[in-house]
Amino acid sequence: MTKTTEQHRVVIVGGGFGGLYAAKALGRAPVNVTLIDKRNFHLFQPLLYQVATGTVSPADISSPLRAILSKHKNTQVLMEEVVDIDPEQQQIMMKGKTVPYDTLVVATGVSHHYFGNEQWKETAPGLKTVEDALEMRRRIFMAFEAAEKETDAEKRRAWLTFVIVGGGPTGVELAGAIAELAFHTLREDFRSIDTTEAQILLLEGMDRVLPPYPEDLSIEAAASLTRLGVTVKTKTLVTNITDNVVTTRCGEQVEQIAARTILWAAGVKASAMGQVLADRTGAQLDRAGRVSVGSDLSIPNYPNIFVIGDLANFTQADGKPLPGVAPVAIQEGEYVAKLIRQRLKGQTLPEFSYVNAGSLAVIGQNSAVVDLGFIKFTGIIAWLIWVFAHIYYLIEFDNKLIVMLQWGWSYFTRNRGARLITGEEDLLKVEMDNNGEFHAPSSSKSTVEA
Amino acid sequence: MTKTTEQHRVVIVGGGFGGLYAAKALGRAPVNVTLIDKRNFHLFQPLLYQVATGTVSPADISSPLRAILSKHKNTQVLMEEVVDIDPEQQQIMMKGKTVPYDTLVVATGVSHHYFGNEQWKETAPGLKTVEDALEMRRRIFMAFEAAEKETDAEKRRAWLTFVIVGGGPTGVELAGAIAELAFHTLREDFRSIDTTEAQILLLEGMDRVLPPYPEDLSIEAAASLTRLGVTVKTKTLVTNITDNVVTTRCGEQVEQIAARTILWAAGVKASAMGQVLADRTGAQLDRAGRVSVGSDLSIPNYPNIFVIGDLANFTQADGKPLPGVAPVAIQEGEYVAKLIRQRLKGQTLPEFSYVNAGSLAVIGQNSAVVDLGFIKFTGIIAWLIWVFAHIYYLIEFDNKLIVMLQWGWSYFTRNRGARLITGEEDLLKVEMDNNGEFHAPSSSKSTVEA
Repeated sequence: MTKTTEQHRVVIVGGGFGGLYAAKALGRAPVNVTLIDKRNFHLFQPLLYQVATGTVSPADISSPLRAILSKHKNTQVLMEEVVDIDPEQQQIMMKGKTVPYDTLVVATGVSHHYFGNEQWKETAPGLKTVEDALEMRRRIFMAFEAAEKETDAEKRRAWLTFVIVGGGPTGVELAGAIAELAFHTLREDFRSIDTTEAQILLLEGMDRVLPPYPEDLSIEAAASLTRLGVTVKTKTLVTNITDNVVTTRCGEQVEQIAARTILWAAGVKASAMGQVLADRTGAQLDRAGRVSVGSDLSIPNYPNIFVIGDLANFTQADGKPLPGVAPVAIQEGEYVAKLIRQRLKGQTLPEFSYVNAGSLAVIGQNSAVVDLGFIKFTGIIAWLIWVFAHIYYLIEFDNKLIVMLQWGWSYFTRNRGARLITGEEDLLKVEMDNNGEFHAPSSSKSTVEA
Repeated sequence: MTKTTEQHRVVIVGGGFGGLYAAKALGRAPVNVTLIDKRNFHLFQPLLYQVATGTVSPADISSPLRAILSKHKNTQVLMEEVVDIDPEQQQIMMKGKTVPYDTLVVATGVSHHYFGNEQWKETAPGLKTVEDALEMRRRIFMAFEAAEKETDAEKRRAWLTFVIVGGGPTGVELAGAIAELAFHTLREDFRSIDTTEAQILLLEGMDRVLPPYPEDLSIEAAASLTRLGVTVKTKTLVTNITDNVVTTRCGEQVEQIAARTILWAAGVKASAMGQVLADRTGAQLDRAGRVSVGSDLSIPNYPNIFVIGDLANFTQADGKPLPGVAPVAIQEGEYVAKLIRQRLKGQTLPEFSYVNAGSLAVIGQNSAVVDLGFIKFTGIIAWLIWVFAHIYYLIEFDNKLIVMLQWGWSYFTRNRGARLITGEEDLLKVEMDNNGEFHAPSSSKSTVEA
C-alpha cells in the first residue's frame, strides 16, 4: 500500500450504500481513501428479493467495488474483514494486517435477528447476502419440484405452503413475488400439481403490514396482497419453527401451519463492528446493537470516528430514529464526506438532517405503495415511481440498464428466467426417505427436526 | 403422474442439447414424453466460459426446462437422477421411483477426465456445470485480490499466473477471456499490482491448439492468442499438479510453473449412464466410456434404446467419430424424434448422417476461427459469425436477447459486470498463515498440498 503521509487518511469499513457513497464523494478530495469490504462488490440490497424469486441474477444488482472506484486514484479498495479497532493508536486491525487512519467511517450494516431463536436460522433463512438470496431461490423452486413428486395430498400441501415471517418491505415484496410465481409464472409448468393451489402466508406481529408507513398505505398494501392471493395475518407472532411446522399465536389463538418453505424477514441486529466500537470507545448501543451517534454522525469523544447507515442509530429532532433504508445511508455517507472536506479546510457543517426521500414498497406487478411525505400513491402510479426510483440508483453504476430490460421482458411475459436451482450437488435432490417421505436438503447441517 | 396407456411412452434422460431438442421435436407427436434431468434448467454450455470469466450470469445462459416445454401438454419434466435401467422390463429406475418406457433416449453427456489423476480435480477444476463456472470465477478474481495483498514479488507472480490445461475450444476461449481481463478490464482497478504483468499460459499436448480443426486455423488461433498476451505451449504434457506448481514435460524438457490458478480443459469422460447401459445391454464403450451406437443411433439388440449427444460414439462413413459439440447433439436429437414418429406410422428413416454446421472457437474480442467446411474465416468476420451463431441458438428459448445486450455493452466498454466472488463464507477469504503466506481457500477439502 502506497501512502502519501502528508495526506489525511480516511478509512471506510463497508461498501454498502453508506460506505460507497462516502467513498465516491471523497474521490476528488485531497485525502487518501481506503475502502474495506469482505466482498468485492457493492450489492443493491433493495432488489435482493428479485434474486430470491428468480427475476434477476446476482450480478445484475451488484457492481464490483474496484470498478466503481477505479477512476479515483486516491482510493484503494481492500477485500478484507476488519476484526478490531484501536481508537487511541488510530488504526484498524484485520487478520495479519493493520491500517492506520486519521478519520474512520464505519458502515458495516446489520444482519438477521431471530430474537433469541438462532436455531430457526437454518429452517427460516433471511435475506441479506447474495448467498442468502440464492438459498431462498433454491428453496422456493425446489418446493414446487418436491410438490410435483409428492403423492400424499397433505404433504403436497405443505410443500405448496410458503410462510413469510415479517410484514416489512422485504416480507411484503417476497410475498407478492412468490404469489406471482405460483399464480402466474409457473401455472403452465407442472403436470401433477396445480401451482395456483399454493398458499402464501405473510405473518406480521404488529396490527398492520409496513408498520412504519402511514396507516392508509398499510391498508392498501394488505388489500393488494390479498388480491394477489397472499393471506395476510397481522397481530400474529411466531412462537416456534421446525422443519415443516410454524407455530403462531394471535391473541389467545395458537395455530400450527404445515409449511416446507419458511422465509425470515422479521428483524435485524447490528453487525459485529457495533460491539467492537462499544468495547473500544464506550459508544452506546441500542437494543438491536446499533451505535448511537451524535448530530454529526460521530461517536462521543471520538470526533474522527463516524458510524453511518444501518449500523447507526441517529435520533431525529422528533425523537424517532432514522429507518435502516438506502436513502438514509446514502445521505449519511455524503454528509460525512462533506464534513471531512470541510474540516480539512478548518471549517465545519451544520448537524446532519435527513431529507425524507419517501418510503416505498412494491407489492407486485403494477402495484406498490409510495409515501413521499407530502403525497401518497398506491397502485400503478406508485409502481412506476418505484421502478424509476430504483433504475435511477442502479444506473449510477455500470451496466444496470440490463436490469431495466430484464424487467421490461418479465413485465410483458411474466416469465422469470433466473429460476435456477443451484448449489452443491447434495442440495439439488429432494429424496424419499425410508418412511416414504420426501426431504429437501437444508443448506447447512441443521439440527432442527420436525 | 398421469399416463395415457394407449400412447407410446418416450423417456428422455438428460436435458442438454440432445435430450432437449428430441423433446421439443416430439412436442406435437402422438406420444407421451417424460424428460428427466438432475437439474431444472437447460444450460447453454458453449458460453459457460463467459460465466467463468465474469461476462454473463448463469441464468443468462440457462433456461428452465419446464418453461421451454410448458406448451407441450404431452410432455412431463421430472427433476430426478436416473440410477439404473431395466431394458427387459423397459423401465428406468430413480431413487424410490420407476418409470416405464416404450422408447428410451439417453443423453446424459460427459464430465471431466483427469486421465487417472483424479486428485488434480480440486486444484485444477474443470468447466461443465454452473457450479464449476462460479468456482472458476471465484478463483480467477480471488487470485487478483490475493496478488494485490501479497508483498513478496515471487509469490505475487504465482498469484498472477494462470495456467489453462488443454488447447481445445474451451481452453482457447478461457485463455483469451482471462487475457482480456488482465490486460484490459482490470488494469485500472488495482493499486499495488499491475494486472498487465499477469501470465496466461495455455498448455496443449498435441502439436497445435484446436487439434481437430484445419491446421491453418490452429496457426491463426495461436497467433491471435499470442497477440492477446497468452503464452501458448504446444507438445506440452502436464505430469503433475499441486496447489501452486504445475509440472510439464515438452519432449525431454521438464518445467515447473509456479501458478495459483490452474484450470482444466483437457479431457472428458462419459457420464455414469454409459457404464449402466454397457452393464445392462452389453453395449460397447469406447476408451472415454462413450456408447457405440448404430447407424440409427440405437444400441445393438435394443432398437428402442437410443444414445445421443456427447455420450454417443457415432462413427461416420470416413471412420471418424463425430465430435462432442452442440450441433451434433441437436441433429441427433431431432433425428431420433423423427425416427420415433416414423416408426409409429410403421415407417423408418435413412440412417443418421451429420450435416456439418462448421466448427468455431472464439479467441477474444473481434477474434475467432470458423471452419464451415467449404470456407474458413479468422479475425473479425469469424467473430461476427460466432456471435450470430450463438445468438441464433440462444434466442430459440426465452429471454436470451439480454445476453446480446450484455455482450454489446461489454464489447464497447470492455467492462465485465458479473465478476462477483461468491460462495460460502469461508471461501471468501484469502488469509495469511503463520508463515506469512497467503492462502486462497479451495472449494472442497483438498488433500493436495504444495
